[in-house]
Amino acid sequence: MTDLIITNAVVVTADGANTLLEKGGVAVSNGKITHIASAETLAAMEGQAKRVIDASGMLLMPGLINTHCHAADSLFRGLVEDLKLEPWLQTVWKAEAAILNPQTTHLGSVLGFAELLLGGVTTVMDMFWYPSETVRAARDVGVRVSTGGIFFDYPGVNGQSQVQREAIAEAFFEEFGNVDDVFPAVLPHGTYTVSPEHLKIAHAIAEKHGGLFCTHVAETAAERTDIETRYGRPVVQHLEQHGLINQRSVFAHCVHLDDAEIEILARRGATVSHNPMSNLKLASGFARVPDMLKAGINVTLGTDGAISGNDLDMWMALRLAATVHKAVARDAEVVTTREALAMVTINGAKALNAADRIGSLEVGKLADMVLLDLKRPHAVPMFDPLTHLVYSTAKSDVRHVFLGGEQVVRDGALTRLDIADTLDQVQALVPRIKASIA
Amino acid sequence: MTDLIITNAVVVTADGANTLLEKGGVAVSNGKITHIASAETLAAMEGQAKRVIDASGMLLMPGLINTHCHAADSLFRGLVEDLKLEPWLQTVWKAEAAILNPQTTHLGSVLGFAELLLGGVTTVMDMFWYPSETVRAARDVGVRVSTGGIFFDYPGVNGQSQVQREAIAEAFFEEFGNVDDVFPAVLPHGTYTVSPEHLKIAHAIAEKHGGLFCTHVAETAAERTDIETRYGRPVVQHLEQHGLINQRSVFAHCVHLDDAEIEILARRGATVSHNPMSNLKLASGFARVPDMLKAGINVTLGTDGAISGNDLDMWMALRLAATVHKAVARDAEVVTTREALAMVTINGAKALNAADRIGSLEVGKLADMVLLDLKRPHAVPMFDPLTHLVYSTAKSDVRHVFLGGEQVVRDGALTRLDIADTLDQVQALVPRIKASIA
Repeated sequence: MTDLIITNAVVVTADGANTLLEKGGVAVSNGKITHIASAETLAAMEGQAKRVIDASGMLLMPGLINTHCHAADSLFRGLVEDLKLEPWLQTVWKAEAAILNPQTTHLGSVLGFAELLLGGVTTVMDMFWYPSETVRAARDVGVRVSTGGIFFDYPGVNGQSQVQREAIAEAFFEEFGNVDDVFPAVLPHGTYTVSPEHLKIAHAIAEKHGGLFCTHVAETAAERTDIETRYGRPVVQHLEQHGLINQRSVFAHCVHLDDAEIEILARRGATVSHNPMSNLKLASGFARVPDMLKAGINVTLGTDGAISGNDLDMWMALRLAATVHKAVARDAEVVTTREALAMVTINGAKALNAADRIGSLEVGKLADMVLLDLKRPHAVPMFDPLTHLVYSTAKSDVRHVFLGGEQVVRDGALTRLDIADTLDQVQALVPRIKASIA
Repeated sequence: MTDLIITNAVVVTADGANTLLEKGGVAVSNGKITHIASAETLAAMEGQAKRVIDASGMLLMPGLINTHCHAADSLFRGLVEDLKLEPWLQTVWKAEAAILNPQTTHLGSVLGFAELLLGGVTTVMDMFWYPSETVRAARDVGVRVSTGGIFFDYPGVNGQSQVQREAIAEAFFEEFGNVDDVFPAVLPHGTYTVSPEHLKIAHAIAEKHGGLFCTHVAETAAERTDIETRYGRPVVQHLEQHGLINQRSVFAHCVHLDDAEIEILARRGATVSHNPMSNLKLASGFARVPDMLKAGINVTLGTDGAISGNDLDMWMALRLAATVHKAVARDAEVVTTREALAMVTINGAKALNAADRIGSLEVGKLADMVLLDLKRPHAVPMFDPLTHLVYSTAKSDVRHVFLGGEQVVRDGALTRLDIADTLDQVQALVPRIKASIA
């Protein structure tokens, strides 16, 4: 018995061969894709299906993967403006310290994940203070999440000791190590806020469980200089020196790298999470994405938090990744359409060590899927669906989203949750948030 | 008698003082704004109004102004990818030559203006081959337009002679010189495609009628070098040498300017139309916007055509203008929120010599207005409406649009036109367009 057939769509599988179907779709059973076929082939199966969706005028593609986010920071969207990263971070941390607790973290994470899912993102790597709350919010909304214990050599928002942080990081693997919707990780904040000793402990916990190791890397020139001053080498060399880079490393930003560092990341099989909107708005600079691609690095995309963005728009990240580097390089041929599309699909899956389950429409993979409306002025004419996705699609084109075959967005609205309540609760926090930085 | 009251909105007037109302709106009579007031004040007038809109949960602002577009080029959206400007232009011109005539120009312009209006743009400066068709399309959709005769020293799409082009440019002022919805201009293509003699004729026609003079300026490094080679000076110096720059000049792109050229534009009171998405995607480079602002130049924003974009999204242009230059300058304080917002509102009005009629919500101005939905995840929380407009708003937030008080977009749909027919007609052209460049 087939649970769901989606047919008559333009299909972008985003598989290795970038297979396209002009008119076709998928069959889904038990949360997984069982067939990818033409409308004609699917027609013969429709009698046996519990539900058939006629996706005429729509484009079917895999759900997007966002490899760097702090969803709960959406609570502080637009609070601090026109500052460089370091002074901006000081103010943000002040507001975070005053407002954040498990409850507000859950609320902010629901807000962030709701925005992402409505924009077609079905998997998010998220770094935040209360990882269990992050998972709870992801499940309330209907996205998969990669998260886990954070390391930070200061009291931070929750005042935890290093011992407590280690225990939480360990416990996270116990609780979420064997589920489909969580990709467990250990997430030290960065080399400038976590000592080499603590980074090594974080890495050892991740390695012990086969989990991911994620941190901020070389986001600003100041951070690079700071690490060089303290440790005598730049950030990636510092991580390499301590044996902290492998195929389960996901390094956010990587704006200020030299050739040797790019070579190390490529050789070790690490993933770079490029966050173009954050890097532009915070004046961090331009990551060397064309050089990274040339070196063979797995480049993925992230939105960063909504305080650096100020939204969580993966289509914006995609458009920027495909265009900004052309202007930097003065070469319209760098970062091709296919390279850019891979960054939000299969490369994201590779980053999470989950390319066998998500990141493309392929038989046997989880049915994480997006239907985009093509009856929009900016979608017409459409000469090439890939070009449309990279250079014209907007988040508001997302009409339906499926997570493991379950419809989690229907006609632009969440199905698991009424977002209006969340928006009211967040807006009610505004006076307290304003007072926190007054 | 009041025709329309919009009330209970967050109001961003975008006037000189950036006046905000937390809860208020406007009254409109005979197409013009008669009152801007609090909800309380407006409540007393509601009994006398033909129509009252309760805009709770929405933001009211002036319609956006796009100062550089080739709307009909939307017919070729996504046709040519991953090429630098010059070879790209050769291919585009081939397709244009094969497909464009007055009818297809009208069709493509309707498509482009529809996309713009649905995104909240109420006034567009548009350069294209059949200016009367451009005006007809603008009126069919419901936008104001600045356009007029083009000059081009080659046969181009329509094979007209210089004498014919001059006659058309003159005739345009006769026909559209005294209407509210057209801002007549003369639009020579550029200094590399129009001789100094013909530029001077174009300028003389514009001056004779008090019209605008608009051309492409220094879009690429190659163009700059070309003009230097031919005439011994860079593009702006070349225009200055021939007396072609004044307060009615609108120069698109201006990517490759030196200090002296920036000083000339500032001194002459010319407008720069900055087109960030086009400049990124075509690898043209980064316009020196912070330097232009510092020099006091009137900087406005354009989408360029959808073949360079590939959409016509003024919110994207706004976001890019506010963020890209921060990364270029490595300074998060360049291009402030207020400077960016002015580029899409009052500066656009100044460019069209129409700041007395459009570009802000002020008593006596035309009621060109946009209502944005604030009940969206990316709009919450909202600490500052200006920050929200520049850094979070998306085109899909546009819910209602009014042109001179007439509602031209209702709940995200055009009121004058059924866009579905246009989309079908455009998609039907695809095989012919593909064949034209095969």
